[in-house]
This record gives sequence, C-alpha cells and structure tokens, in this order.
Amino acid sequence: MAKDTKDSHLVGLIGSGIGPSLSPALHEREAARQGLRYLYRLIDIDTLGVPPEAVGDLVRAARDLGFDGLNITHPCKQLVIEHLDGLAPQAEALGAVNTVVFEDDGRAVGHNTDVTGFAASFARGLPDAPLERVVQLGAGGAGAAVAHAMLTLGAERVTVVDALSDRAASLAGALNRHFGAGRAAAATPDRLARVVGAADGIVHATPTGMAAHPGLPLAADLLHPRLWVAEVVYRPLETELLRTARAVGCAALDGGGMAVFQAADAFRLFTGREPDAARMLADIGELAGDVDSSVGKAV
Amino acid sequence: MAKDTKDSHLVGLIGSGIGPSLSPALHEREAARQGLRYLYRLIDIDTLGVPPEAVGDLVRAARDLGFDGLNITHPCKQLVIEHLDGLAPQAEALGAVNTVVFEDDGRAVGHNTDVTGFAASFARGLPDAPLERVVQLGAGGAGAAVAHAMLTLGAERVTVVDALSDRAASLAGALNRHFGAGRAAAATPDRLARVVGAADGIVHATPTGMAAHPGLPLAADLLHPRLWVAEVVYRPLETELLRTARAVGCAALDGGGMAVFQAADAFRLFTGREPDAARMLADIGELAGDVDSSVGKAV
Repeated sequence: MAKDTKDSHLVGLIGSGIGPSLSPALHEREAARQGLRYLYRLIDIDTLGVPPEAVGDLVRAARDLGFDGLNITHPCKQLVIEHLDGLAPQAEALGAVNTVVFEDDGRAVGHNTDVTGFAASFARGLPDAPLERVVQLGAGGAGAAVAHAMLTLGAERVTVVDALSDRAASLAGALNRHFGAGRAAAATPDRLARVVGAADGIVHATPTGMAAHPGLPLAADLLHPRLWVAEVVYRPLETELLRTARAVGCAALDGGGMAVFQAADAFRLFTGREPDAARMLADIGELAGDVDSSVGKAV
Repeated sequence: MAKDTKDSHLVGLIGSGIGPSLSPALHEREAARQGLRYLYRLIDIDTLGVPPEAVGDLVRAARDLGFDGLNITHPCKQLVIEHLDGLAPQAEALGAVNTVVFEDDGRAVGHNTDVTGFAASFARGLPDAPLERVVQLGAGGAGAAVAHAMLTLGAERVTVVDALSDRAASLAGALNRHFGAGRAAAATPDRLARVVGAADGIVHATPTGMAAHPGLPLAADLLHPRLWVAEVVYRPLETELLRTARAVGCAALDGGGMAVFQAADAFRLFTGREPDAARMLADIGELAGDVDSSVGKAV
C-alpha cells in the first residue's frame, strides 16, 4: 500500500466563502494531465461554523489525516503563521502564508505563492515593462503580496494608494524596512493624478472590477498610453480597467496569470512535479468563463 | 470545481498499528480500474500518539476536511459509536462499526461490513455448506462479526468456543437475544472434541495461524472429512488450519474472501459504485503474497 499511496496527493484550501474557488479545478486538471491521483478539498470555515482562529486546529487535523499540504486564504493567511513550524523567506517577509506544506518529517512549513505567482505572471506577461515608478492601487492582503513581488522584480519605487491612508502608510513602511529606504511610498487618492502622470505602470490590487464591485478603480482620464497596467482581479478576466486601459493604448495584463502561477507554484511545492503553466492558463480562461487564449499575456 | 471534485472520493482507515493494512491497495486498485479519483489514507493512532478515545475527534475532523467516509478498526470499532448520528442494522445489532459514511447532509452513519463481507464470502465460497451445527473458534471482535454473519445466513446453532469462557458466554448470550433463544451456545475448549465431532463446519476467528501466531487453533485429529472449514485469517492466505483441513478432505475457505468483501461493501457504501469482487480477489492474492487464483473459493 505504501507503493500505491505514495504517488497520490491530498491537499485542500482553508478560508471563508471559498465555494466558488477555481483552485480545485486548476490543481486537479493539471494533476490529471500528469497522471497523478490528486484530490483538492475545500474546507470552508463558514460552512463549518468555526471562527478564523480555528485554522490552527484545521491545519493540525489535516496533517494527522494524511494531507500533503494546504492552501490558505482570507481571513486566515496571517492567523495560520503561529501554528507552523517554519516559513519560507517570501512568507516570512510578507507575514502572510497562502500555502502550507507538510514535510516528510511532519513539519508544517508556510510559503507565499501569491508573491511568487504574481512575479512569475508579470515577468511572463510584461517582460519589458519599465519599472522605475510603479503606482499600486490597494494596500490590503493582495496588495502587500504584489508590492513584494514588484520590488523583488526590481521596481525602483512603488507608490501605494489606498482609501485607507493608514493602511497604505503601514504597507509602505513595511516595504521600506524590508527592501530599503525610499523603495516605497504611500499616497492618498487625491494625489492619484500626479503620481499616475509620472508613472511607468499601475498595479491594481483592489476588488473593484469584480462582478460584485463593478467599475473603475481610478478615473479613466488618468490613463495614458505610456502606462502598462497589471490587474489582480481575474473574475472576470477582462475587467473594466483592462478594457479601458487597452482602449487608451496601454499594455495590459489580466489577473488570470497571477491566479494560475500561484496555483502552479503551490502544485510544485505539494508534488515536486513541474506544472505546465500554459495548459493551466488555458484552463483558467475556460473556468473563468472566458475562452480568450491570451490569458496571462499583455494585450 | 464542484463538477471536478464530485467524482472524487476521499476515505481512510482509523486504527492502531495499521501500517501493513491491505485496505488502501484493495480500494485504490479497484477505484483506478473504475476510473475514479480515490484516495485511501491511513490514520494510525499509534503514529499520532493519541488514545483510542480520540476516534471521535478524528471522525469529526475527517468530515470537516472533506472525507467521504472512513473504515474503523481495532481498537476503535465500539468507541466510535457514540460519535455517530446513526447506525445501519447490522452495526447496531453487533455493537461495532467498521465503516462510517458521511452522508450528503453531514450525518455520520455507521455500518459493519465485516458482517456483510463474511456473509458474502461464505455464500460465494461454500454455497452448499450444511449449517445445522456450526462451531466457531474465537469470541473476540472478529468472532462477534462472523457469528452474526453465520446466523444471518441461516445457521441453526452456533457454538462459540473461546479460551476466555466469559467472553464466549457473553457473545452467545447476545446472539440469543438478537437471533432467538437456542441459536447460540458457549463451550469451553475442553469440550471441543465433542462439539466438533457433531458439527457440520468450523468457523475460525482467532489470530492463530497468522505469521505472528503460527500453529493450529485446535488439535489436528479433531478434523474429519464431513466438516467444512472457514478461515478469518488472511495473512497468510493458506494457514496451517486450511492446509491441515484440506489434507483431511474438508472443504476449506480462506480468509481472503472476507477481507475482500468487507472492502468491496465499504467501497460500494463510499462511492455508490459496484465493485468487481473477482478482480479484488485476484488483487488480494497478489498483495498477500500468494498468487493462488482460488482465493475466496473453497478448495
């Protein structure tokens, strides 16, 4: 039985309201193509009726019951850390974990593939984008991850804009402590025209543009054709921001690439096998209700 | 993702010292032939360092983490009952559960496929065996299950023999209460010659004959050619009892059939799919280190 079960993989996702997650399909389709026996289970704290603080018990139970690893999402990405035995550098730097791997010796190690996934997507989709001045909209959990990714990719200066000015200032401070003074700054929304006017590109990391939050995260007339635009939202794949930016002439990268590469990086950590990101990008186009074959490429 | 994950099945086995169990391989091989994504995990309380009473927490955790069901073995088959929401009739009658199914509504229902599995194996392997007087060796957990199976199959009277006379008397009493007065009796080992001499067949349900407990469970000269012999031990498949009985001329049924049919019955409960028991019998011959294609048939 050891022989029979060792080629199998059992993983899951812990979070709140995760029923619509595309992660099970993304992981399981890629595993099926690789001939792996691979199950991805949704562990929704709302369905279970437990508070976010239960993440520690759920992680321990998953290890005891033979899981190989877990993805972790809102609102547990920070709460899970105290229950882990170790952290990979990007998770430690960010203070957030979206992937837990149960090592062979039983240790639970936290990783953050939101950071590595956004970096991989950006490097693939906008490889020649200038990175001197980047404006980032949104300083929440996704914003923190993509700001880390942009600075890791070599952005000279990331200016974080958030309606919650304390949150933007706090993130900029943390980024400066980690990447060096002057690499990050915070700005209030009333200064958007000035910072976008001087920027090479915009990273969008707020919920605006999702089906439940339609609209644009900034005034359309602030966009100019010298900008690139990178989106975190991936449902829908073509947000109003991307549509508007493309009409202006910006190179624009959808959020499907980040969704795929964070899944691909987790898949690699869980299995030790190399996922085929191109096939997974085709999957997310189909799963997110969009058959556009250009997912993850700037168009 | 619902579509992708609903055709998958996640099950496991809770018990003590279960590392060598053949259940993962039996279940997963049959599932693979049926094209199911199916994982069977071993949850060993010794490895986890938890007491048998932890079975309730483990069952709840398995349900919360997306398991479809569990097998339960020693020493948790009775302890699990108080943590379940319902019992199938054979589990209720026996007071022991070896299979838990998580229904779609979240209810955990206990079954006993040791009973149905032994009955199926016996009906297949010794279909014409006379059942007026049956002697059963062993009144432990396996003995209780197979005694229930024999009486359900129509045995007129089962005489239970155990070195622990209290245990034999207790089982006989419980059988009489459930199946009707006079259907069962207890006897001490010193009366074996008399009861075997008058018997149609012997069911063997002690550990004697396993690799760690070699030998015969009764004196060889008590066997006579009018007897059939049904074995519960299946590792090895050919026990010294079966070898001796066959040499005497008895129809003799190995324990592989019970092992297979209890697994097949659990597989059906977990998946709603009909397993192919013939293929599983071939598997257990191979897995138990015996390529005899007659597993589960009386020879």
